[in-house]
Amino acid sequence: MAARPDLEIIEYRPEPDEYAWTFGGAAPVRRLAPGTVVECWTEDCFAGKVRSTDDLSTVVCEYPHFNPQTGPFWVEGAEPGDTVAVHFVSIEPARDWAASTTVPLFGALTATHLTAMLHEPLPEVVWIWRLDRDARTCRFEARDGSWGVDLPMDPMHGTLGVAPANLEVRSALVPDAFGGNMDTPELRAGVTCYLGVNVPGALLSLGDGHARQGEGETCGVAVECAMDTVFVVDLIKGVPCPWPRLESDTHLMSTGSARPLEDAFRIAQADMVGWVSGEFGLSPLDAYQLISQAVESPIANVVDTNYTSVAKMAKRWLPPRDAMDGTHRRLAAVAEAYRASGRRAAGG
Amino acid sequence: MAARPDLEIIEYRPEPDEYAWTFGGAAPVRRLAPGTVVECWTEDCFAGKVRSTDDLSTVVCEYPHFNPQTGPFWVEGAEPGDTVAVHFVSIEPARDWAASTTVPLFGALTATHLTAMLHEPLPEVVWIWRLDRDARTCRFEARDGSWGVDLPMDPMHGTLGVAPANLEVRSALVPDAFGGNMDTPELRAGVTCYLGVNVPGALLSLGDGHARQGEGETCGVAVECAMDTVFVVDLIKGVPCPWPRLESDTHLMSTGSARPLEDAFRIAQADMVGWVSGEFGLSPLDAYQLISQAVESPIANVVDTNYTSVAKMAKRWLPPRDAMDGTHRRLAAVAEAYRASGRRAAGG
Amino acid sequence: MAARPDLEIIEYRPEPDEYAWTFGGAAPVRRLAPGTVVECWTEDCFAGKVRSTDDLSTVVCEYPHFNPQTGPFWVEGAEPGDTVAVHFVSIEPARDWAASTTVPLFGALTATHLTAMLHEPLPEVVWIWRLDRDARTCRFEARDGSWGVDLPMDPMHGTLGVAPANLEVRSALVPDAFGGNMDTPELRAGVTCYLGVNVPGALLSLGDGHARQGEGETCGVAVECAMDTVFVVDLIKGVPCPWPRLESDTHLMSTGSARPLEDAFRIAQADMVGWVSGEFGLSPLDAYQLISQAVESPIANVVDTNYTSVAKMAKRWLPPRDAMDGTHRRLAAVAEAYRASGRRAAGG
Amino acid sequence: MAARPDLEIIEYRPEPDEYAWTFGGAAPVRRLAPGTVVECWTEDCFAGKVRSTDDLSTVVCEYPHFNPQTGPFWVEGAEPGDTVAVHFVSIEPARDWAASTTVPLFGALTATHLTAMLHEPLPEVVWIWRLDRDARTCRFEARDGSWGVDLPMDPMHGTLGVAPANLEVRSALVPDAFGGNMDTPELRAGVTCYLGVNVPGALLSLGDGHARQGEGETCGVAVECAMDTVFVVDLIKGVPCPWPRLESDTHLMSTGSARPLEDAFRIAQADMVGWVSGEFGLSPLDAYQLISQAVESPIANVVDTNYTSVAKMAKRWLPPRDAMDGTHRRLAAVAEAYRASGRRAAGG
Repeated sequence: MAARPDLEIIEYRPEPDEYAWTFGGAAPVRRLAPGTVVECWTEDCFAGKVRSTDDLSTVVCEYPHFNPQTGPFWVEGAEPGDTVAVHFVSIEPARDWAASTTVPLFGALTATHLTAMLHEPLPEVVWIWRLDRDARTCRFEARDGSWGVDLPMDPMHGTLGVAPANLEVRSALVPDAFGGNMDTPELRAGVTCYLGVNVPGALLSLGDGHARQGEGETCGVAVECAMDTVFVVDLIKGVPCPWPRLESDTHLMSTGSARPLEDAFRIAQADMVGWVSGEFGLSPLDAYQLISQAVESPIANVVDTNYTSVAKMAKRWLPPRDAMDGTHRRLAAVAEAYRASGRRAAGG
Repeated sequence: MAARPDLEIIEYRPEPDEYAWTFGGAAPVRRLAPGTVVECWTEDCFAGKVRSTDDLSTVVCEYPHFNPQTGPFWVEGAEPGDTVAVHFVSIEPARDWAASTTVPLFGALTATHLTAMLHEPLPEVVWIWRLDRDARTCRFEARDGSWGVDLPMDPMHGTLGVAPANLEVRSALVPDAFGGNMDTPELRAGVTCYLGVNVPGALLSLGDGHARQGEGETCGVAVECAMDTVFVVDLIKGVPCPWPRLESDTHLMSTGSARPLEDAFRIAQADMVGWVSGEFGLSPLDAYQLISQAVESPIANVVDTNYTSVAKMAKRWLPPRDAMDGTHRRLAAVAEAYRASGRRAAGG
Repeated sequence: MAARPDLEIIEYRPEPDEYAWTFGGAAPVRRLAPGTVVECWTEDCFAGKVRSTDDLSTVVCEYPHFNPQTGPFWVEGAEPGDTVAVHFVSIEPARDWAASTTVPLFGALTATHLTAMLHEPLPEVVWIWRLDRDARTCRFEARDGSWGVDLPMDPMHGTLGVAPANLEVRSALVPDAFGGNMDTPELRAGVTCYLGVNVPGALLSLGDGHARQGEGETCGVAVECAMDTVFVVDLIKGVPCPWPRLESDTHLMSTGSARPLEDAFRIAQADMVGWVSGEFGLSPLDAYQLISQAVESPIANVVDTNYTSVAKMAKRWLPPRDAMDGTHRRLAAVAEAYRASGRRAAGG
Repeated sequence: MAARPDLEIIEYRPEPDEYAWTFGGAAPVRRLAPGTVVECWTEDCFAGKVRSTDDLSTVVCEYPHFNPQTGPFWVEGAEPGDTVAVHFVSIEPARDWAASTTVPLFGALTATHLTAMLHEPLPEVVWIWRLDRDARTCRFEARDGSWGVDLPMDPMHGTLGVAPANLEVRSALVPDAFGGNMDTPELRAGVTCYLGVNVPGALLSLGDGHARQGEGETCGVAVECAMDTVFVVDLIKGVPCPWPRLESDTHLMSTGSARPLEDAFRIAQADMVGWVSGEFGLSPLDAYQLISQAVESPIANVVDTNYTSVAKMAKRWLPPRDAMDGTHRRLAAVAEAYRASGRRAAGG
């Protein structure tokens, strides 16, 4: 079946010299009208250079060429004060393997450049994970000994963002108010991400596909793989979004990225209080109380330049209203139409 | 049906003058042989004094008389270097209401005595939650406006611990290596908690029942209620436990309590690496990698004197071995025998 | 010359079995009337067991027997809500050597039990410092190589406190609102320390003499030595003191002890704003502004269970009033009378 | 007297449309050969718009136009891996007044955008300080009441930096490894600052003059004024500098900028351990011990996007060697020659 005539679809697969390594500071690669479906491909965070257990990232990669982004996309009509919405139709591993590794002086359980100590770095070890895209599994094989196990595949993007405010250009390794390297497993297919616009055109990019990751990304690196990803973009005029928010069919989520981790937690929870009191008619203190008893608070990462915390509220426990101008519902319908068009198999 | 003859069962309901307000420093109220089933009752964190929206905790309660504990129990044979295991058979609200409140200068989204600022405190507001023990729901009613919602009941103990090390006596409001006021929703019926013993007899206490709470306990107070609780106690000789660990039928969990929150996260994750490499045969770096991709990291509290973070690993993703000497399996069997005895309805 | 007849003087030198290892939880060794001069002796933080570079603290010392305190002293008339004042007449090294060491998993530049990591501990190395009490110097000798240098002697007590609030007993290694192991070089002779009283009699102890230390006590251990110390105690009835405050002839100082370090900073600075606006007639915002431009903020320690920060304001930049009921001036006069009595040489 | 013929002197006073608002991302305004003396002028952090107590910064200023920088200067020959040295000959207030203010949701004792809370912001109040450049004083006048006091003038630059690494462009409000808005009172005349070069030409800028500030810059704003500043620039080829270092005639200083504040402390102290062991011949553990007992640790700021901590070691306690290739001594001689030339009065 052909795509429905009213679906605007764009395909984009960057060449290696087209990757963006920053949020802000890169020229747009495509212009997107709100409502457009984008079929794109993203390279892994090692630029595809860690392919075996012999490929140490400190040898085969070179700063600052970590975490290549696909984009930026110019969203037509986007101006500071608006919000861009990105709905993920599908996120599918583009290879049958993925890589993970320890990185010297990076990760939650090691001294780092910011948590500076006198220890020698931990050893650098690479794991290659086998992905079974039919069985939807990621296979871990121990490097010491022969034990292995299949974990469920749960593909996501570690990185999604727009150009920052305040004239800044940030490394694609950074999560902050503009989004970026948030590394939350909640950013999966079926979810809409809201990002406040800081510059004309928003300049949206994404990358850092993970076949799966634990909450906190403890060693600093997930099950990193290239992705075939389909998303729909939309624009909410005149509605700001101070920190990235996510919406699924069942949940609202606010994110905060800061150090120390309690500040990331505070941002996410305070934004959720503001969201619930602003859009659902509860007073701020009633929202504070309800959230205190109902919120899930999955940690995203405790390893990046800023740590990321998520506040997650079930919609069924809130007054029955649409948030963010009903954008998630509208984009989910576009995703459904796209899937019905048969252009790409959803979920693979 | 009568209790099985081999079940040792003790009932204990403290009078108000028998509460313990500290971990350590209180005389034991009962002696428990390992394997004993204890049927007990715990008062809520306000000592039952906040009963209506007019009962401000700053008026009706008086420092240090917050968070009364039931206990301490002397565990026979417990010596420093051993581990006490507590398996929760059931945790059931003892009243059909529960209380929550904002507390001036306490909570995650307010200045506090430790995060000192020049702001006036937030207003003190009380919410009384209605508990429907048959429907298993907790009803929130907004204080401003008429909206209300039923949340699932998910009873748990905010506080469980033993006497601390280093000759200390700690307020029952504190979570630390001895357990205490961890405020994690993971401490529910069906779960075994492991606590390292610091003094002869361990001096185990528990309290701070919550009909439910969100992850992080954002406003500082959960849905606080008195509890009828049944637990089995056991002793693992010669096995230390540096930080409280939890085990359910499906998961292993490590906890860390510290500030800043990333240190609590680090403790829990590092303990899980040590647990998995120590008891399941993976090398430390293989454990680090597997945990990084598989762990859930539910935040417990970001409001107490120490913040608490949990690292949660599904057992099905680990080599098929029993942890902690098979204690959880053994205690779950005792719980099953107890339930079969018909002495108290399980789950209510 | 004999002591003035109106000077009440008490001598106290504890036997090893009389040391206190905690704040709170120890029976008083002496009763002191306000105004009493105490001539005492304190052992070093290793209980005198680290005497050569071969004496590793992990071998010769045993938990919890670190940081022995001299006391507690019962201050007559002290009740919760009062403030005890301790003025140091002299603090003099009692030996001609002092010890320092790295301690595995302790210090600012190493993984610790709270900042948990997967690194091996740093090596344990002991330095013995030679003290020249006439030249007022401490001699550092490198362990690797032959270089050495004389640093100025600047004797101080790392630990001074009263029994905690909330029924607690805390290890002598902990700094908190009750004082304790603050490890600030500002606690030297000529300084008055104010401590809020939490229990009848206050239960004042002191120890942890340092011939000198850097700001932050980076490796976790100062130039540790036994001390001959003379202090005057006083009581300010009906005046609370939420966090330890210090006063010298020239400065007012507030301390905060917490984690993360910014919370310790906030406590100290907010207390100084409260002190200056409460006792010197400035509005809180004027005090905030003046302090922002005038304060010195010497870090005390970044290694203990809580980190300690000091806010230090020159008196000459404040309206000319006496703080804390003129206690410092009054105690300095007692100190002068004591020195005039010739009982002990001041400053040695 | 004319300048010595061998002194290369450049004057530069930016027009308002020439200010840089970022580190990185701005075109160089002048090229400087190593050894050049620059006579420049910097505007205050409010771009000169807060001139009376009626000028609220939230009204008269507009994001992102805070903290204008003079520069960037292209340092000839500078390449990544080199170090640029900036020696301050003089820093003199360019006006007879300076401004300070509280800023809503900014400062150490208030909720902020990163330490998010539910409090209303503190009031916005402006103070205008009178500067007496002959008497070398800054006059504080209370806004509430009539009290005032003269504080010593101690002029400094809050902001000095080079273009960041990793392709980034950072707001001039940010301190980080590239320098930037460190806000340390140690950056005064007579001091040399070392900055690692990240991009060709280094792209050096400076601004944010303070007539004085307290340690920590508690309310977030110092005594802000335009400055007439003279500096000498130099280049140290092939010597990297991972974090900004300072050198005076008497002290070596390392800086760290991060959150939480203990991480800033760790960076500065670990860099000092590396500096002393790398350039002065002590082993790392001997350096750790010596620094632990000798270091001063003045806090710089606890208010900016990153907090800044300084580790300060007296040179007289180190082996008698020149650090950083003798650059400070060499630049101090150039400064002396400049002063001898009579072009501008030193110190005013």
